[in-house]
Amino acid sequence: MPGRNKGKFGNDQVSELTAGRLSVYLRCLNALDDEGTKTVSSKALAEQFHLNAAQIRKDLAYFGEFGVRGVGYYVKELKRHLRQILGLDRTVRVGIFGAGNLGMALADYPGFRREGFVIVGLFDAAKAKVGQQSRGGVRIFDVADFKKMVKKEPIDIAVVAVPAAAAQSVVDEVVSCGVRAVLNFSPGTLKVPAGVRVKNMDLTVSMESLSFFLARGDADGRA
Amino acid sequence: MPGRNKGKFGNDQVSELTAGRLSVYLRCLNALDDEGTKTVSSKALAEQFHLNAAQIRKDLAYFGEFGVRGVGYYVKELKRHLRQILGLDRTVRVGIFGAGNLGMALADYPGFRREGFVIVGLFDAAKAKVGQQSRGGVRIFDVADFKKMVKKEPIDIAVVAVPAAAAQSVVDEVVSCGVRAVLNFSPGTLKVPAGVRVKNMDLTVSMESLSFFLARGDADGRA
Repeated sequence: MPGRNKGKFGNDQVSELTAGRLSVYLRCLNALDDEGTKTVSSKALAEQFHLNAAQIRKDLAYFGEFGVRGVGYYVKELKRHLRQILGLDRTVRVGIFGAGNLGMALADYPGFRREGFVIVGLFDAAKAKVGQQSRGGVRIFDVADFKKMVKKEPIDIAVVAVPAAAAQSVVDEVVSCGVRAVLNFSPGTLKVPAGVRVKNMDLTVSMESLSFFLARGDADGRA
Repeated sequence: MPGRNKGKFGNDQVSELTAGRLSVYLRCLNALDDEGTKTVSSKALAEQFHLNAAQIRKDLAYFGEFGVRGVGYYVKELKRHLRQILGLDRTVRVGIFGAGNLGMALADYPGFRREGFVIVGLFDAAKAKVGQQSRGGVRIFDVADFKKMVKKEPIDIAVVAVPAAAAQSVVDEVVSCGVRAVLNFSPGTLKVPAGVRVKNMDLTVSMESLSFFLARGDADGRA
């Protein structure tokens, strides 16, 4: 297929920002596919979803997806390609640590299932919670059993939704079990060895960035 | 006070990334203050919290906070200064839209209260939920009453935790009531007029950025 240049694929210049944008494009393509739309131009995509058409073309061209003159992009094909680039063409197994409000909310977050993330279970230290399940049916396991469970059924991503004081020890434990990617909802910074990636979702930081812009009286953009 | 250069404060070059880092420093200073630490050098701050010392100095110098030779920064004073820069020296009032798992989790998120965000209430369209409250005691109001309530008690930030299909109409409603900052947890993009700031917390995008790095076999950094 012309332009499907896999060589560029492993390039270090592909930033996390690009990955984030590809992920947003995938959300938009899902919506178009649900509506039955077969093809879309970068211009129409940009207009419908409040994105930047030039940026879309640049991002997709980087991955060898050039669209077809007079047609635009084939929605289903571009979806498949983006899913492949984002590593969603295989099963991504997720364990959620902490079965409090936040952990329970994340376990049932509809977007995860839609993209094929498999929520293996919730893990908590509170014996009273063990054996229960989220509204969506994700079971709560004893965190003490994680090491044993993960040997049989490895997980790819650990979501940390425990109180701040417990976060580092949870991360140490999952990393020692071979997990290489962590989505962290606890405040503060976590220490991980090289080769492990942490994505911090500090909710207070996000709120404060809004507070910052309100305080400056400068709210003319999107974050 | 030398170097407390307020002139630079409104500069457009102050990026959201800087605001995010200041917010992380504030988290670290809170931890130090809790421990009773009186002063800290950029080097010690960097080492203890896995940050970059040169970046800390650069960020703080930008806001006129230079530290004291041989002492470093006074923890309480720097905290106060950062809180002022981040607009946390006044009350920031927050309304949360959607009283599902996620909204309930956000209502009780301990970091918000700690920094002085006041969660005014949860707002939901489901009559059965109205009048109930979160575990932490945040009351659930009828979203239909929001317009009336906000006239008496304005809110600064609207947190959107409703299903994707309802998100745009919720945002249109809060914006029409004068809210200028939105923290959005629903997937997809939201349209807002100029002068309103949206910060998107798309959880699927975050998971996919981890999946992307796992797929590339390149996990040598922090997100």
